[in-house]
Amino acid sequence: MGSCCVKFCGVICWQSSKSDSSGVSNSGESSKESSRCSTPVLDADRTDRLRDKMKRRIESGDHWFSLEFFPPRTASGAVNLISRFDRMGSGGPLFIDVTWHPAGDPGSDKETSSMMIASTAVNYCGLESVLHLTCCNQTKEKITAHLNKAKRLGLKNIMALRGDPIGEDWVEEDGGFNYATDLVKHIRCEFDDYFDICVAGYPTGHPEAESYDNDLRHLKEKVDAGAHFIVTQLFFRAETFLRFVKNCRAIGITCPILPGIFPIQGYHSLRQLVKLSKLEVPEEIMQVIEPIKDNDAAIRSYGIQQAVEMCKVLLASGEVPGLHFYTLNREVATIEVLRQLGLWAEDPRRPLPWAVSAHPKRKVEDVRPIFWASRPKSYIYRTQDWDDFPNGRWGNSSSPAFGELTDYYLFYLKSKSPKEALLQMWGEELMNEGSVYEVFTNYITGQTNPSGHKVMCLPWNDDPLAPETNLLKDELEKVNRRGILTINSQPNINGKPSSDPIVGWGPAGGYVFQKAYLEFFTSSENVTALLQVLKKYEPRVNYHIVNVQGKNITNAHEMQPNAVTWGIFPGREIIQPTVVDPVSFMYWKDEAFALWIEQWAKLYEDESPSRMIIQYIHDNYFLVNLVDNDFPLDSCLWQVIEDMFALLDSPRETQEEGSQS
Amino acid sequence: MGSCCVKFCGVICWQSSKSDSSGVSNSGESSKESSRCSTPVLDADRTDRLRDKMKRRIESGDHWFSLEFFPPRTASGAVNLISRFDRMGSGGPLFIDVTWHPAGDPGSDKETSSMMIASTAVNYCGLESVLHLTCCNQTKEKITAHLNKAKRLGLKNIMALRGDPIGEDWVEEDGGFNYATDLVKHIRCEFDDYFDICVAGYPTGHPEAESYDNDLRHLKEKVDAGAHFIVTQLFFRAETFLRFVKNCRAIGITCPILPGIFPIQGYHSLRQLVKLSKLEVPEEIMQVIEPIKDNDAAIRSYGIQQAVEMCKVLLASGEVPGLHFYTLNREVATIEVLRQLGLWAEDPRRPLPWAVSAHPKRKVEDVRPIFWASRPKSYIYRTQDWDDFPNGRWGNSSSPAFGELTDYYLFYLKSKSPKEALLQMWGEELMNEGSVYEVFTNYITGQTNPSGHKVMCLPWNDDPLAPETNLLKDELEKVNRRGILTINSQPNINGKPSSDPIVGWGPAGGYVFQKAYLEFFTSSENVTALLQVLKKYEPRVNYHIVNVQGKNITNAHEMQPNAVTWGIFPGREIIQPTVVDPVSFMYWKDEAFALWIEQWAKLYEDESPSRMIIQYIHDNYFLVNLVDNDFPLDSCLWQVIEDMFALLDSPRETQEEGSQS
Repeated sequence: MGSCCVKFCGVICWQSSKSDSSGVSNSGESSKESSRCSTPVLDADRTDRLRDKMKRRIESGDHWFSLEFFPPRTASGAVNLISRFDRMGSGGPLFIDVTWHPAGDPGSDKETSSMMIASTAVNYCGLESVLHLTCCNQTKEKITAHLNKAKRLGLKNIMALRGDPIGEDWVEEDGGFNYATDLVKHIRCEFDDYFDICVAGYPTGHPEAESYDNDLRHLKEKVDAGAHFIVTQLFFRAETFLRFVKNCRAIGITCPILPGIFPIQGYHSLRQLVKLSKLEVPEEIMQVIEPIKDNDAAIRSYGIQQAVEMCKVLLASGEVPGLHFYTLNREVATIEVLRQLGLWAEDPRRPLPWAVSAHPKRKVEDVRPIFWASRPKSYIYRTQDWDDFPNGRWGNSSSPAFGELTDYYLFYLKSKSPKEALLQMWGEELMNEGSVYEVFTNYITGQTNPSGHKVMCLPWNDDPLAPETNLLKDELEKVNRRGILTINSQPNINGKPSSDPIVGWGPAGGYVFQKAYLEFFTSSENVTALLQVLKKYEPRVNYHIVNVQGKNITNAHEMQPNAVTWGIFPGREIIQPTVVDPVSFMYWKDEAFALWIEQWAKLYEDESPSRMIIQYIHDNYFLVNLVDNDFPLDSCLWQVIEDMFALLDSPRETQEEGSQS
Repeated sequence: MGSCCVKFCGVICWQSSKSDSSGVSNSGESSKESSRCSTPVLDADRTDRLRDKMKRRIESGDHWFSLEFFPPRTASGAVNLISRFDRMGSGGPLFIDVTWHPAGDPGSDKETSSMMIASTAVNYCGLESVLHLTCCNQTKEKITAHLNKAKRLGLKNIMALRGDPIGEDWVEEDGGFNYATDLVKHIRCEFDDYFDICVAGYPTGHPEAESYDNDLRHLKEKVDAGAHFIVTQLFFRAETFLRFVKNCRAIGITCPILPGIFPIQGYHSLRQLVKLSKLEVPEEIMQVIEPIKDNDAAIRSYGIQQAVEMCKVLLASGEVPGLHFYTLNREVATIEVLRQLGLWAEDPRRPLPWAVSAHPKRKVEDVRPIFWASRPKSYIYRTQDWDDFPNGRWGNSSSPAFGELTDYYLFYLKSKSPKEALLQMWGEELMNEGSVYEVFTNYITGQTNPSGHKVMCLPWNDDPLAPETNLLKDELEKVNRRGILTINSQPNINGKPSSDPIVGWGPAGGYVFQKAYLEFFTSSENVTALLQVLKKYEPRVNYHIVNVQGKNITNAHEMQPNAVTWGIFPGREIIQPTVVDPVSFMYWKDEAFALWIEQWAKLYEDESPSRMIIQYIHDNYFLVNLVDNDFPLDSCLWQVIEDMFALLDSPRETQEEGSQS
């Protein structure tokens, strides 16, 4: 009984049945690899290797871009960089890469290390990521340890570099890592085909190379050793790159060669970069820049224009399948260049309604509980030790254990706002529960609070209201004002096209559906009335009502999940990416209640009235979720709340009558 | 990769996570057993044991009925009995039972044996079934072998009887099976809790018992030995049964006691039964019957009325949870009694759109390929050796091997019509392919053919057109007339209530959906034009086109199934019970083409023109299936066919233009 879909997943079965049925002819060659398990294969991008993605894009003539970042110096820099990943990830890069600085402990577990930043990009931001790795002055054991760690963390791509020698008098070591080629060979030797490998190309020759031709030969060696593609050093003229590609092809380098694009963003950063990379800035560029060197805006604007022009020539040449951007961890210039080139995905297609992790273990995952909708990183973190992920169906038995909350204040789960800003938003001093209702209401409406600040986030929502939730804004405002403290909701959707800009997801030509969902904290008095009212809505409305002690009241099957988001697509099985699951709700409950204390109450002094108000709510309120199963009709959940208030407002006798009915 | 849902199925996981999460409180006690795997638990009736079903029905005050049959004497009798199971099963019996006659080789593999009839009822008709078993003059080994075989076949319930001794001078054997009690003990000892056990009760005392009281004590022993419920011998007065129940309760028999109801159906059958059972027919009944003993209709009518009156008294007593009918393998009287009592399910709720097998191994099964929609018994037969059944998702890898066609002419797959009737329907002599088109057209329209016979079935459809297919009748007629020989189809459905009398299925309060589907044989000329036309319908229409050699043309993913029927229900995950699956289509193709020869061509002499026409179609036609993915819009499949004919009718040049576009 424990393996109900095993037989239907195995490639072995497919092969054996293939040989049984002599008549089967396989039409199409695509993604055999990706069909091994019963994943919906929503998007081959989720399962293909980077090299295969490139191959497909080259074949279809679909230009891509990629983004290079360096690791931040501070923890708050890391938090900022990760939100940048989320924002820039939405533009649709084929991959991002994270540089490696041997002096900065790049392989450590520190939140600012190259390793952890790249891991976060893969696991939490769902970005295909390339980790740089330098080998100069490193032992084989150290390198292998880094690679093993990268593999364990779900990283699948390495940019193999020599790196700069330490000290003046570097000499080749026998049997050591003297060149990137040695690293490429080592990776292929120790890890076979596991990693996709990128190497660096120098359009004007490596500064230390004996000659341009000699350098080209080195590049050929790196590729022959097993690299899959090349990213070049930056350059300033399209013809520099195009000549380089021509020369590469002439000596038999056939893999993709991606030009490194550096939009000039300021006079000083340009000078510094040029110095480091020992490049010469062409005269025609210096002539423009020198006169405006103190006008940052003018230089940025020129940099964007110059990069756009050059990229247009590159793309038009037919030699360039994709562009690689040196972002310097900045957003504006790169995004603007990509926008002007038409490469920035203005309306990124979502394969699923939530952000898909790029960890290879999670590639089949296509069902999650709705509770973590606003805290996907917390969900990913707490389920990182799962060996299998729900695929097709959550199942009416439970999920395996969720990770503990104790490790929970990792940097990527931290609020992006400092304590002072939180106090400004949520109140320096709370007077009563009503003050809390006001915070929730202001978050919904976007209005400023009495002290003149907008409430941009809540402990359960790190970002402003989602566009989808905005559809419910008026109703949400009304109920929050009266102490229905909503933390998650979705409208009902009865078959909108999968291309819908607000609620759409999944492949083209499909239809998406939702059941209306509402989740909130509210007082036990309200819950008593609500339970009366809910009797009238059986079996249309399913509910779970729980307090911090775990007292759980529900009319749902004890283990049966309720699918609340699903999609129907051409030529596929049904996808149902979000469910209300009774078992995981109890794990979410712990997290949701803890956020009152950890993120809000602790802003105030021990024993302070403000802190005691939040503590009171934590101790006495209930967490409620409601699902309206009748998705083709207007949601009745607002009427449920209305009825609850009506019952509370009615004279005492009526309430007692109600309880006898 | 091969076990993507294992973690989510195991009760072990659920238990371990339960102990991890101290806050989880289990609301409700129901069906823990049935929640072990990620089955949709569409219907607790599918997973509960018979005793639990009875318990639930007793608690809810929901009266049931059950039906007793005896094994047929001939193979054609077996075919008829099985269609009777299908028809009477639709009325909603809680169970059926099959009697055991030691002289008739009841445990053998013969198609007429008690064992095989009960197995067919469970596996192919989806009926909860009780197999009778007598123990008198049997060895322990023999009995155990019977029970093992029953278990292997998926039977879960045994009616434990002593049976009639062979010969005149029966004496008790030491350690042998002398009484039904011995058999009950043996079953419990050897099979623990596996079987639900029924025993017989005698409202007027067993004819061989020393006394009524003594007989009651024997019954108490049988129950104490482990029987779960009692079915009584027939009787003619409600008070006979009610007194018996009262006496049973008085001595501590607490299990359900079901009255055996025998609607009098004729003078002679009554006399015979009375003689065999050593019962006395009450004077008031004989007084009515004797004067009309030669008027069968009058006696039947009286028998129905008498049974209805008695059953009403029984049900009104509050002592009777369900009625057990001795049907004598006849339908009319029993159904009429049940109709008048309001127990016959006029609109049986279908848990899934296809008939669910009652085999315990198949209880999680909730996805099937659409191809066998009209031949569900063939599908069940060909998948009987599967260890796991698809649950929630078919999966985009293949299904395990389907059973061979060689064993295929088992009695339950035989056509119910004899050869002569088939020739009358399908033509004593075929003139050309057009004659075949006419047969298909007449099947659709229900009109008589030139020789005055209605075409009630086709090799691919053993029954007249389904009500759902009737919705498409006009379009089907039009295309069949022109050589689109349809064998399976369904209309698109965009969210009809699950209670819809024609297309509804599943629990109350849900909505069902379908993609339009059309499957047909057609000539290779038509296929050439069709393929031209289908280019215009990408990606809206998915198709698979295959000939008998297995040449396969498709625009679908090679292994990805397309869900074509699904339902959304309160508090559940999505159910998608039918899919178009590319892999199993190749198995179905073999079966579908074979039916031309085995069921149709072989009606004619070797080398006869009629036979050669069918053989030509078999060798040259293609089997085509089409899915319109855009289920919210009117089906475009008829337009596809229209366009195909338009292209065929157009001048040659237009066709060639078409092929260049």
